[in-house]
Amino acid sequence: MADITKRGSTTFNLDQPNPALFTNEKHETYLGNSPPLTPGPKDCVVHVRSNGICGSDAHFWKEGRIGSLLVTCDYVLGHEGAGEVVWAGSAVEHLKPGDRVAIEPGIPCGECYQDSIGNYNLCHDVKFSGAPPYNGSIRRYHLHPASFLHKIPDQLSSTDGALLEPLSVVLHGFERSPLRLGESTVICGAGPIGLIALAIAKASGAAPLLIFDIDQARLDFAKKFVPECITFQVQPSQRPEANADAINKTINDFIGQQPRVVYECTGVQSSIITASHIPRPGGEVMVIGVGKPIMNELPFMHMSMAEVDLKFINRYNHSWPVAIRLLAHKVLDLRQLVTHRFPLEKAVDAMEASVDRSIGGIKIHIEDQEDVRESRTVVPKPRL
Amino acid sequence: MADITKRGSTTFNLDQPNPALFTNEKHETYLGNSPPLTPGPKDCVVHVRSNGICGSDAHFWKEGRIGSLLVTCDYVLGHEGAGEVVWAGSAVEHLKPGDRVAIEPGIPCGECYQDSIGNYNLCHDVKFSGAPPYNGSIRRYHLHPASFLHKIPDQLSSTDGALLEPLSVVLHGFERSPLRLGESTVICGAGPIGLIALAIAKASGAAPLLIFDIDQARLDFAKKFVPECITFQVQPSQRPEANADAINKTINDFIGQQPRVVYECTGVQSSIITASHIPRPGGEVMVIGVGKPIMNELPFMHMSMAEVDLKFINRYNHSWPVAIRLLAHKVLDLRQLVTHRFPLEKAVDAMEASVDRSIGGIKIHIEDQEDVRESRTVVPKPRL
Amino acid sequence: MADITKRGSTTFNLDQPNPALFTNEKHETYLGNSPPLTPGPKDCVVHVRSNGICGSDAHFWKEGRIGSLLVTCDYVLGHEGAGEVVWAGSAVEHLKPGDRVAIEPGIPCGECYQDSIGNYNLCHDVKFSGAPPYNGSIRRYHLHPASFLHKIPDQLSSTDGALLEPLSVVLHGFERSPLRLGESTVICGAGPIGLIALAIAKASGAAPLLIFDIDQARLDFAKKFVPECITFQVQPSQRPEANADAINKTINDFIGQQPRVVYECTGVQSSIITASHIPRPGGEVMVIGVGKPIMNELPFMHMSMAEVDLKFINRYNHSWPVAIRLLAHKVLDLRQLVTHRFPLEKAVDAMEASVDRSIGGIKIHIEDQEDVRESRTVVPKPRL
Amino acid sequence: MADITKRGSTTFNLDQPNPALFTNEKHETYLGNSPPLTPGPKDCVVHVRSNGICGSDAHFWKEGRIGSLLVTCDYVLGHEGAGEVVWAGSAVEHLKPGDRVAIEPGIPCGECYQDSIGNYNLCHDVKFSGAPPYNGSIRRYHLHPASFLHKIPDQLSSTDGALLEPLSVVLHGFERSPLRLGESTVICGAGPIGLIALAIAKASGAAPLLIFDIDQARLDFAKKFVPECITFQVQPSQRPEANADAINKTINDFIGQQPRVVYECTGVQSSIITASHIPRPGGEVMVIGVGKPIMNELPFMHMSMAEVDLKFINRYNHSWPVAIRLLAHKVLDLRQLVTHRFPLEKAVDAMEASVDRSIGGIKIHIEDQEDVRESRTVVPKPRL
Repeated sequence: MADITKRGSTTFNLDQPNPALFTNEKHETYLGNSPPLTPGPKDCVVHVRSNGICGSDAHFWKEGRIGSLLVTCDYVLGHEGAGEVVWAGSAVEHLKPGDRVAIEPGIPCGECYQDSIGNYNLCHDVKFSGAPPYNGSIRRYHLHPASFLHKIPDQLSSTDGALLEPLSVVLHGFERSPLRLGESTVICGAGPIGLIALAIAKASGAAPLLIFDIDQARLDFAKKFVPECITFQVQPSQRPEANADAINKTINDFIGQQPRVVYECTGVQSSIITASHIPRPGGEVMVIGVGKPIMNELPFMHMSMAEVDLKFINRYNHSWPVAIRLLAHKVLDLRQLVTHRFPLEKAVDAMEASVDRSIGGIKIHIEDQEDVRESRTVVPKPRL
Repeated sequence: MADITKRGSTTFNLDQPNPALFTNEKHETYLGNSPPLTPGPKDCVVHVRSNGICGSDAHFWKEGRIGSLLVTCDYVLGHEGAGEVVWAGSAVEHLKPGDRVAIEPGIPCGECYQDSIGNYNLCHDVKFSGAPPYNGSIRRYHLHPASFLHKIPDQLSSTDGALLEPLSVVLHGFERSPLRLGESTVICGAGPIGLIALAIAKASGAAPLLIFDIDQARLDFAKKFVPECITFQVQPSQRPEANADAINKTINDFIGQQPRVVYECTGVQSSIITASHIPRPGGEVMVIGVGKPIMNELPFMHMSMAEVDLKFINRYNHSWPVAIRLLAHKVLDLRQLVTHRFPLEKAVDAMEASVDRSIGGIKIHIEDQEDVRESRTVVPKPRL
Repeated sequence: MADITKRGSTTFNLDQPNPALFTNEKHETYLGNSPPLTPGPKDCVVHVRSNGICGSDAHFWKEGRIGSLLVTCDYVLGHEGAGEVVWAGSAVEHLKPGDRVAIEPGIPCGECYQDSIGNYNLCHDVKFSGAPPYNGSIRRYHLHPASFLHKIPDQLSSTDGALLEPLSVVLHGFERSPLRLGESTVICGAGPIGLIALAIAKASGAAPLLIFDIDQARLDFAKKFVPECITFQVQPSQRPEANADAINKTINDFIGQQPRVVYECTGVQSSIITASHIPRPGGEVMVIGVGKPIMNELPFMHMSMAEVDLKFINRYNHSWPVAIRLLAHKVLDLRQLVTHRFPLEKAVDAMEASVDRSIGGIKIHIEDQEDVRESRTVVPKPRL
Repeated sequence: MADITKRGSTTFNLDQPNPALFTNEKHETYLGNSPPLTPGPKDCVVHVRSNGICGSDAHFWKEGRIGSLLVTCDYVLGHEGAGEVVWAGSAVEHLKPGDRVAIEPGIPCGECYQDSIGNYNLCHDVKFSGAPPYNGSIRRYHLHPASFLHKIPDQLSSTDGALLEPLSVVLHGFERSPLRLGESTVICGAGPIGLIALAIAKASGAAPLLIFDIDQARLDFAKKFVPECITFQVQPSQRPEANADAINKTINDFIGQQPRVVYECTGVQSSIITASHIPRPGGEVMVIGVGKPIMNELPFMHMSMAEVDLKFINRYNHSWPVAIRLLAHKVLDLRQLVTHRFPLEKAVDAMEASVDRSIGGIKIHIEDQEDVRESRTVVPKPRL
């Protein structure tokens, strides 16, 4: 174990400006100064260099809630962050200032049954940075427990680091519903999650691959991103079953056998219904996308007759080390997905861009690449 | 291999009367004479001694369809039969006249992908005795391929033999969603399928067990059948979530931890929604019951957050040998479930009784125990 | 949370006599006074009322090692203990003096990868009470972290409580190699572990069951314990393959199909080889028994041709709650297994009895049922 | 269904010369004329264009047996064949003369329990072309049931087609022991099977990859074949544990965590022992390589303590369609593995080359690319 004193006695001024992107229950989004950081001995302060915007950030802003999570106060958005450690608490062993890290945003309680069996994503009392009321990582300096910061190697940029969070979501879906080498699959939706699913399916040795969406521009993006894929534009005017029939005809023409697993990456009801008609008997739909709390029109008789299961995920566990390996060893390269970058000062514009379908954005990243840190010899006092 | 000639040359008169219970597209049910039997060399003729009535029999009668299966002609009902072989084709090796057998009603095509991997219940071209247009086993003499007749040992009655079919349904649900020894579980619905599920859960070493229903009489039956179980009456006037909350409170008071697997045995939408709120995070609902083609009001946000999967079954495969062992070795005893017995001549009354909730019936069996067979030395000609 | 002060301020005199059963590197076993207890705020002191002797206790005594665990000092034996809490540290929430508890002996580090995924039995730095150099529970007062003490309900005796440890071993074997309802199985060895496996197999709804051993007296015990089982005496003078042939003939005569899973509960090489020849193709041997570090004469060609896997276990994780439910709900009753009981003062005699095959003992328990505790108002000082 | 008459009435002279490579119980290998072909209505005759030599071919030749399979007569070697259909029986539906096919050599009985659950590789009565006494595919014209001939698309050469058999072996190992995306793994042995395993591991998205062998030239080949891999030369003079220690040190330096799954592809005892020490706790060794019937020196204590399982495979089932997809969609490219090609006339030289380690061969293929067929209008008579 290295020198604890040295780790603890780094120079970081907790009082310096800390610009942060807020939202609140009035559906506003604005740049303000972060609430003060009060780090403890097992925490680190990270200078966030890159942070992706997720659909859920916009959802909290525009709708004020996701499920039981309600926006009831002003809080800092963002949960797809990476940067460098600028201060490490005295009890932190595996990190020191200067280390480049990716932030795993969800902090489980560490005491419950789900945590004890390793499913810490299902912890009943997780504190998730960027979900209300916990302040997230779209700010210059982010406070985080060191045990949920993952060191990233030199070959990964902070952009890569910020992509590890959405990658983790999809990896967890594939962990629960693995593809076998040489299987075909269908991905529903060519947004960021669907595109990552497409890349993971390819990296898993799955073939052939079909991705569908209502938006031809997104399908064109998918085709450039993974040229092997077959793209299919569904017609929103059609019933989901009719879209499924047309997709299944394409599958029969190009692929042969219906896929065993279909990855639903939109959370849209019509897509879920379409997805339910695609797996072969004995197959399953992995619902990665999150949509309305209540879904209707589910084809239960069909799912019973065909033994097509519906499986669900909530975030991820133990995924960062895997995700880092995948990028570091070039098994995956997701950088094409970052279509737009905004400096932290323009974070509000970034949020607006994230909801503007006309600009053709996939991932919008907020960056803070310049070195702006004021250094003074200040040792933060541990929290009580 | 024994003497094929001898096996083939049994004495059975194909022209003798063969009373059978029919239904048709006019929603009638009546006793008539079976269409003529035209056995081939791999077939047997079985004198059906006992046959259970399933909810689907009444459904075909009253509604004229289940899913894509339409009643478009007069055909013989029944798919829960057992009896004794009265004639065996020349190519039949494992059975001879006099053998007591249970009938596995679904005959797969034997050529498709699902058959090749053992999931013959998912065969796209299964011929299911008793589902239109294939004649079923509520008749005196039933023709069936020998490979789907299962010899039953002396300790099993033909009543036991007829119970192997609904037992198989539930076994397949437990095969796809196994309980671990010492786990608690919840069964939704105290009809025949739910009661068999309750018995199987107990036989699997699961504890404690909770079963719910809207009908207190059925719960009283369940309590007599499996005295260890906790019964819970749901309120049809309540929202499914409210019933789930009340059940979960009971679970917390008596059991402690939410169960991992919940077995839904009604196919009723409100029960499925209630069921979806009961498993602990990471758990699943095994949907054994079959109901409406389309279901609404599914709590997808909850299922996503809790990673509660929905799994489905369609019938069974390879289950008869297991089911026979369970009854022969007294691991299970289901005979209490047969609350009413009618002779074949009163089969129409039996059907009426099966839809009369006031009589408190669980399984209604149609029996033909007397020896009525005319014997003449007739060797049926094989089909082309 | 209840009154911490009250919990902490119980009356227990740490200096009172604490008789304990020691062994050492000179292969001695003797009764002495336990090393002093130095409890911390998260610990409890348990008055051990019952403690089973395991084959490994005798092995440490006679052989001085198991695998890499070497006896290099005098230490207290025992890891199958139950009793009542006589003192609880100030940070202990779920236990208080007077609570009856079973002791889970292995304390994982809580920090490593295996712990994080729930496999804490595979922790590289587990501290196991009763394995050198950690003092075990064959003493009057045993110090243990509260989080590895499991409250037992009134219907469980302390004898039951002490049986939870060997039950946990077998449960973990069945967790890794589950039996399906209605499957046959074979148990190798009718010692304590094999008998528990037999009881678990029966409780899992497996049938039929065959158990083999070289010792007819043990088989007779098995037959009384689980009357449904088929017993088979193997001949030590025969080659393992010949014993397997004879067992397989018995299986074919009585059971029909070879079992899918065989549970090896002796750790003896010849038994493992015999076991490897028993599963049907695609099956597996779950090696629960621990024997010599190196095994020879494994039939690899046979195992390759038949795809018969060899699986192993090391202790257990998360098993106590399950094991408690099984005994509390009468799914299992293991009390017959305790054939001999000795008071703590005669612990050396108990150890001698445990290695004396002539007495026909299965489980030898050491008990300390009388109330001998001196009470003085002493609050132990927490460890640093 | 297409025109059966036309399919049946192709022109093929069964009496034309049919050169074939024989071995016999005198350990000879020689070119002779194949026994006459007697096709039935469900068979095809294939002009074998390419056939790989497997280590087992040399083993039958040199040792006269593998396990219970004994060479007791002169028979034709070869089970890795591909070519084109030159005659199709009247009942063959999915193939016609001119179709290019790969030969799946094992023909199961189709009646047994293992076949019924899809594990036809475990059929107790499989007829395996090229294993005594069944004639194999190192001959110009090979007779085979059509249902075990798989049509290959234009983009696959007959060399590719012949590689589908060893690819199937490894795929089955990965089917039973799947790798997850982003996992590291270790491959034991850089022969043909190990190299295919390496390629499959890469195609599965596994990273990083380590392969070991005693032969540096083979490791150099591996590095050219899969440049991402780490190679490690084991020292035959060292004990297997010492080699494992050195490999584990390399893993710790380059990879970090021990792999979960290790693929043993040599069947050599020392390699299996080394392999057993490599997985992390809770991991497994997939034994793909087949070696001596009996293995010694297995580290059972280690495998128990670490819960490292040993898993085995025997051939494959349902693998050809997957394997064809993998090559057709360029997920895998195995053509580099074919280092030497001999015309059918030089088949004896090819066999000699296959056992000559000095030539650095990986896969030796025997080819018959010229069009030598005599055409006469002869319809073979079906077998009885």
